[in-house]
Amino acid sequence: MFKRMDEIAIEIPNVERPDPNAAAAIQELLGGKFGEMSTLNNYLYQSFNFRSKEKLKPFYDLVMSITAEELGHVELVSHGINKCLRGSTDYKEPDNTPLGSVKDVRLSYHFLAGAQGAMPFDSMGNPWTGANVFNSGNLVEDLLHNFFLECGARTHKMKVYEMTDHPAARAVVGYLLVRGGVHVVAYAKALEIATGVNVTKLVPIPSLSNKSFNEAWKYEEKGLHTKLYTYSDKDFTAISQIWKGTHPEDGQPLEVIQGVPEGYPIPEAPAVEEEFAPGISQEDFQEIARRLKMAGNIAD
Amino acid sequence: MFKRMDEIAIEIPNVERPDPNAAAAIQELLGGKFGEMSTLNNYLYQSFNFRSKEKLKPFYDLVMSITAEELGHVELVSHGINKCLRGSTDYKEPDNTPLGSVKDVRLSYHFLAGAQGAMPFDSMGNPWTGANVFNSGNLVEDLLHNFFLECGARTHKMKVYEMTDHPAARAVVGYLLVRGGVHVVAYAKALEIATGVNVTKLVPIPSLSNKSFNEAWKYEEKGLHTKLYTYSDKDFTAISQIWKGTHPEDGQPLEVIQGVPEGYPIPEAPAVEEEFAPGISQEDFQEIARRLKMAGNIAD
Amino acid sequence: MFKRMDEIAIEIPNVERPDPNAAAAIQELLGGKFGEMSTLNNYLYQSFNFRSKEKLKPFYDLVMSITAEELGHVELVSHGINKCLRGSTDYKEPDNTPLGSVKDVRLSYHFLAGAQGAMPFDSMGNPWTGANVFNSGNLVEDLLHNFFLECGARTHKMKVYEMTDHPAARAVVGYLLVRGGVHVVAYAKALEIATGVNVTKLVPIPSLSNKSFNEAWKYEEKGLHTKLYTYSDKDFTAISQIWKGTHPEDGQPLEVIQGVPEGYPIPEAPAVEEEFAPGISQEDFQEIARRLKMAGNIAD
Amino acid sequence: MFKRMDEIAIEIPNVERPDPNAAAAIQELLGGKFGEMSTLNNYLYQSFNFRSKEKLKPFYDLVMSITAEELGHVELVSHGINKCLRGSTDYKEPDNTPLGSVKDVRLSYHFLAGAQGAMPFDSMGNPWTGANVFNSGNLVEDLLHNFFLECGARTHKMKVYEMTDHPAARAVVGYLLVRGGVHVVAYAKALEIATGVNVTKLVPIPSLSNKSFNEAWKYEEKGLHTKLYTYSDKDFTAISQIWKGTHPEDGQPLEVIQGVPEGYPIPEAPAVEEEFAPGISQEDFQEIARRLKMAGNIAD
Amino acid sequence: MFKRMDEIAIEIPNVERPDPNAAAAIQELLGGKFGEMSTLNNYLYQSFNFRSKEKLKPFYDLVMSITAEELGHVELVSHGINKCLRGSTDYKEPDNTPLGSVKDVRLSYHFLAGAQGAMPFDSMGNPWTGANVFNSGNLVEDLLHNFFLECGARTHKMKVYEMTDHPAARAVVGYLLVRGGVHVVAYAKALEIATGVNVTKLVPIPSLSNKSFNEAWKYEEKGLHTKLYTYSDKDFTAISQIWKGTHPEDGQPLEVIQGVPEGYPIPEAPAVEEEFAPGISQEDFQEIARRLKMAGNIAD
Amino acid sequence: MFKRMDEIAIEIPNVERPDPNAAAAIQELLGGKFGEMSTLNNYLYQSFNFRSKEKLKPFYDLVMSITAEELGHVELVSHGINKCLRGSTDYKEPDNTPLGSVKDVRLSYHFLAGAQGAMPFDSMGNPWTGANVFNSGNLVEDLLHNFFLECGARTHKMKVYEMTDHPAARAVVGYLLVRGGVHVVAYAKALEIATGVNVTKLVPIPSLSNKSFNEAWKYEEKGLHTKLYTYSDKDFTAISQIWKGTHPEDGQPLEVIQGVPEGYPIPEAPAVEEEFAPGISQEDFQEIARRLKMAGNIAD
Repeated sequence: MFKRMDEIAIEIPNVERPDPNAAAAIQELLGGKFGEMSTLNNYLYQSFNFRSKEKLKPFYDLVMSITAEELGHVELVSHGINKCLRGSTDYKEPDNTPLGSVKDVRLSYHFLAGAQGAMPFDSMGNPWTGANVFNSGNLVEDLLHNFFLECGARTHKMKVYEMTDHPAARAVVGYLLVRGGVHVVAYAKALEIATGVNVTKLVPIPSLSNKSFNEAWKYEEKGLHTKLYTYSDKDFTAISQIWKGTHPEDGQPLEVIQGVPEGYPIPEAPAVEEEFAPGISQEDFQEIARRLKMAGNIAD
Repeated sequence: MFKRMDEIAIEIPNVERPDPNAAAAIQELLGGKFGEMSTLNNYLYQSFNFRSKEKLKPFYDLVMSITAEELGHVELVSHGINKCLRGSTDYKEPDNTPLGSVKDVRLSYHFLAGAQGAMPFDSMGNPWTGANVFNSGNLVEDLLHNFFLECGARTHKMKVYEMTDHPAARAVVGYLLVRGGVHVVAYAKALEIATGVNVTKLVPIPSLSNKSFNEAWKYEEKGLHTKLYTYSDKDFTAISQIWKGTHPEDGQPLEVIQGVPEGYPIPEAPAVEEEFAPGISQEDFQEIARRLKMAGNIAD
Repeated sequence: MFKRMDEIAIEIPNVERPDPNAAAAIQELLGGKFGEMSTLNNYLYQSFNFRSKEKLKPFYDLVMSITAEELGHVELVSHGINKCLRGSTDYKEPDNTPLGSVKDVRLSYHFLAGAQGAMPFDSMGNPWTGANVFNSGNLVEDLLHNFFLECGARTHKMKVYEMTDHPAARAVVGYLLVRGGVHVVAYAKALEIATGVNVTKLVPIPSLSNKSFNEAWKYEEKGLHTKLYTYSDKDFTAISQIWKGTHPEDGQPLEVIQGVPEGYPIPEAPAVEEEFAPGISQEDFQEIARRLKMAGNIAD
Repeated sequence: MFKRMDEIAIEIPNVERPDPNAAAAIQELLGGKFGEMSTLNNYLYQSFNFRSKEKLKPFYDLVMSITAEELGHVELVSHGINKCLRGSTDYKEPDNTPLGSVKDVRLSYHFLAGAQGAMPFDSMGNPWTGANVFNSGNLVEDLLHNFFLECGARTHKMKVYEMTDHPAARAVVGYLLVRGGVHVVAYAKALEIATGVNVTKLVPIPSLSNKSFNEAWKYEEKGLHTKLYTYSDKDFTAISQIWKGTHPEDGQPLEVIQGVPEGYPIPEAPAVEEEFAPGISQEDFQEIARRLKMAGNIAD
Repeated sequence: MFKRMDEIAIEIPNVERPDPNAAAAIQELLGGKFGEMSTLNNYLYQSFNFRSKEKLKPFYDLVMSITAEELGHVELVSHGINKCLRGSTDYKEPDNTPLGSVKDVRLSYHFLAGAQGAMPFDSMGNPWTGANVFNSGNLVEDLLHNFFLECGARTHKMKVYEMTDHPAARAVVGYLLVRGGVHVVAYAKALEIATGVNVTKLVPIPSLSNKSFNEAWKYEEKGLHTKLYTYSDKDFTAISQIWKGTHPEDGQPLEVIQGVPEGYPIPEAPAVEEEFAPGISQEDFQEIARRLKMAGNIAD
Repeated sequence: MFKRMDEIAIEIPNVERPDPNAAAAIQELLGGKFGEMSTLNNYLYQSFNFRSKEKLKPFYDLVMSITAEELGHVELVSHGINKCLRGSTDYKEPDNTPLGSVKDVRLSYHFLAGAQGAMPFDSMGNPWTGANVFNSGNLVEDLLHNFFLECGARTHKMKVYEMTDHPAARAVVGYLLVRGGVHVVAYAKALEIATGVNVTKLVPIPSLSNKSFNEAWKYEEKGLHTKLYTYSDKDFTAISQIWKGTHPEDGQPLEVIQGVPEGYPIPEAPAVEEEFAPGISQEDFQEIARRLKMAGNIAD
């Protein structure tokens, strides 16, 4: 089971400049083959199907806890997309073509299907699919997969970072480069412990360091790349048997932290009348407020 | 952000009788269009893209908190599948065809791709897809969708219940009928508050009551159908402005509970050597144990 | 625009023997790449996009009118599937597992998603897709495509005929072999007129005659293979400039008939309580009957 | 069975201004999840699989007759797309790159696969799929689905209307807003009669009236939103037991009309030589004309 | 079995002008329904499943040998795409947004998933699928399919040629028009021999000759359209029983050539540092060079 | 470019016992995510898009040459499927239901779409898709991917081997285990040379040796696991800089062989009249033979 918090991992800057095609690019990091939906669901299903978990508890705890962090990444990247979309259109009467400004943007779904919000599809609008989930059941093979998956995910992040300098995009992707980098190392270390082979020496793939990305570097400077959280009130503490020693890139000591990192308020999103979202008039609000305050059933 | 617990919603009975085709049927409730992956992701994305959430906080809190419960349902139904698969094969040398016993079962992916574990696909092996997520941004339309989605999900559960009497399947589906029924009513009430129209009178759809299913009835008898949890340590309490009054079917008073329901230990899953899962020999275990206990980096 | 009749092309026999896997096989003729959904939609879209239709009116009329016949074929094959499904389950209380009898059948969607009714998917449950529609806009190329498509569709019908001797399946497939055979010849003749090349000599492909299939032969004996209908009250009569001369296989004279062939009552389908279809109790019926008879709005 | 007419529902204006990206947007209303292909096929399959139709004749007649109207909508929206595409390219010799003007448009399929004609895919070029069809067999659930589907379809139309002011697009979408609005109300009334719950009060969703769209308002002014047609020469008259009383939005009396509305000539589409459509030279025409006039088989 | 050569069919010019949207258009000829992946795999699987091949050896040899040529076409069109992509971006530090220049191009996969290289998807980024493969096993039907497929493939090539005048695109497409034209005629002749019907008279479809395309004409002038290669050192010589007589368009005598045509060096592709491809620094190169020269295992 | 030989990698035994569900299982090794279509196309596209190939020639040569071997594996596994299908049906008149014997088998496509031949889909009939191809352009990442892909492919082979003891299946899968094992080691060694990290020590994954499978062991006994072929007449010889030293599992010395291994005759496949394959009567054969011997054009 999971608990939710009304908090998000970082503060995303508000920017006046809408950039729908940047939002489209970031969708690759959400619903693409190497997006957060993929990392989330790979670890989610691997955690369900984990065998011999008593004997292999540190590995099980690793997969269990990273799953929870990935949920927060799905959330974060979605809010990053939303910030890039913000302001793409202005209210006008329908006959004045208020969505005309986005007729030529790459991802029409953002405007025709949704109301300028993130959805589980990739940068071309192809939906995320369960075919992206891998779970052989073999510990070494699954760890090898996860290590590869995280390297691939990191590469995609590096490229999206390079494609747009929208501050909201950069803030989100910079942070995720660091946290994704943690997962690269975590699975490398797990694979190393499972096999005795020094795969952490392969890190980073590609060989360009996160420190070359300003928005990632600022987090590494604070040591965020050395911390693995249990994302649980009391469980999954055995990850400290894997997340130990030093970071393969800069030799900083690694640290496990019980619980979740400090969170930030989730951004408020303004109404977009030309998209009928939320489509509640001032009068409607008052009626709704009245009904919300009633003591029992509404429509008896 | 989310936190995870090393607990599951109910205890699923251990059964000696494997039933791979029952497991295949339950997959519809996991990765089908009306499966738990769909309810989870619909609410997840609706929560990300919610507009005017301050003004509409009770509705926002509802979608936020139910998302977290759905995560637990994805987990539960996956473990239900796993219990039905358990024992489908016995260990033999490869040349003795240990997987021969499942050559004719309906869902080959369970045995060839995975190691007899749940995956995000439906009863025919078609993967879950992000195309199943709906989010118009319009509050009334999204609530209407969610109400319909939960009715559809309930119908599928009723049919899977009727298709197999495997005790693990029945235990899981019976429980989910009740909790899914809570979500049917919750979205009906939300829609009622948003519009003033008494849609709760439509409940239940189909008109057969959960009480006609023994494994659901046993939970309703204890009042589980009247409780909505915040699935949060401290947030999402405004759901009590929606989840109030009485249950439309039996008139029992409704109750909001802060936090999560009591959990149960997640079932241990035995090694399946003929599937190479986890594929760790006794010697390997000893080596791994040694490396887990080392103080720092493994392969320096 | 189209008009509908409450009639179907032939009478399908009622049979006590359910055969869900035969129903699954027939689905290939409905939602498969060479199923009736494909022929329907190819001609539908070709008719929309037809260029120079005044100059090429006989070809335009051909595509327009055959589209309408294909709608009836989609209907017919669906009812054929339904007849094969009929009786697959018996009513029992949910706890007595009324759908247990179909747990092992090939196409679970018939029972879990629907209520034992035809759907637009193929024999493996893969949905029909618009990717099956071809329309180059080039007259000769589109006619060549249609000729090929009808040959492929005929081959699939021959194989389904050979796979099941269920009388409902045989009745439907036998009839469709003949009507599909008419379309093979019609497109061959159209191609011949467009190019001067004697492609009708290729017919039939495969070379086995429809007359080798008893349920098709009985229609050809009556000359059904020589008649092309306009499927319109007054339009599309120019098809007589294409459908003329003699049948390439048996030399019978061809005939165009204005309008539609004689129809038959559409089969009634009984309630299936264990599938909640239609899920209307005797009491509900009475309430509904009362509301249907009211003069104005129901819920004022 | 169905009959076809060589007529279309409205006259679409001819416009000199091509707009391929507007055409792409309209594709969402054709082959999208909430496009006309979806409404058509949902009702088509529900009509095939309808159970207890004698007892529930008015509901059956409703689904049967609306199906036929939807066929005309698929036709209309396709012609709307074609009008927006018209003039996108000009003839030049191949070496002079006649399709160069559309190299950067969003939907390459219109130009590379087809010859500038509508196809069953959505605004991103993803093909329509049979997975969009829902049919539980349960009357109330299917009606609820249809009501929701029509609300979703209406929302998409509103957004496409807002995205382009191309006169052909506006004409088609304005008309469809009104007719789709009729179906919203029709299914709401059917649901109300089936359950006694006043769901028509939910209309319209989103709450913005069709009257706020000039091209829809002009039809509502003439009362088009109050008329439901049987789309049949003589069948489906029992819809008058559902389509009765007054319109929930403006209180106008509702009316059932036997047959189809008056139609208009289907637009002629000019040859597009640079797409090889229809690819018939003047000489070819003469040869074809000669062969069309021959008395019997062409290539004996 | 197959052998590979380090050679490609033609020299593709190097061009300074990048054109990512032209590259996207050419993808239709690679991974589209009528792309080279489709022709390749249709013949590959038909060759595996060929029945009675001793009796039908010339037909078998035809399918076997054309398969091998198609492999070279997949290669050629991929390199054509790569040449159009070349130079789309310039190296800058990540924070300087080196991929910003391609944020708005149509096919984001070229830049986010890959490193500016061809992939098996079509012009909209939809992946090639095995559903594009047809193999009925019936000789005449398969030949008819192949003839139609090659005509459709030719039409797509003609349109891509017309869409971009990028010299690399034109060079590749011009050559493929000629070679694809050879396959059109080859299957027409095979069909003619199998049935006695003069289908070669249908050629060319569309009726515009390859000679109207400068980059194709230059090859036809040299007679390339009259030559069919065995693409084998010693097998498949029986194709000369099919590829004989004269070309249906210009009456030139046809010729079978044992072996493969003369090849050209495969273009070198420069590193693209901003895509981390190949991501090997000068130091890395030296280390790698050292390890490549070591006598035995590297990491003992 | 590629050349083809009329030879196959091994002799597959003829077996009287048909096993359609074993054939379905083997399809996973052909068109599944980890099937031969995936290995083939991954290396094919990586070879097209390889950057800095002069500097990295041994790696380029490795990918180039393995691609060619994979083509032979696609061929081999297809013939293995065909052998398992052989004899599934017997000839009868269509009215005697000759395909009735396979109505209940898992993969209907083998019988309805094809004529009992292999197709590019997986064990559930889902088509292979280009989405299975990975090519980041980064050398280390692509090698890591390939190493993982081969491990995954090997695991699937191990499971299919365990699922059926059909001699044709065992012969093919046993051989492919060995050759796939060679590719596992080849990519491990390449990765080792590229990075200096001893990843070959991870081999084998899963840890069960090929020597535990009789049909693989018999090939390893002969040293087949130590040989890497260039699959070229004269190119790709630089693979000897990677394929050197000893095998990580048994320490045997590794060897590069110029060219291809010795081949075997491709199995003849008998006509299946009830599938209309090839559908050529004795009379047809004589006519065809006559036309094949004619000197020039057939249908002048």
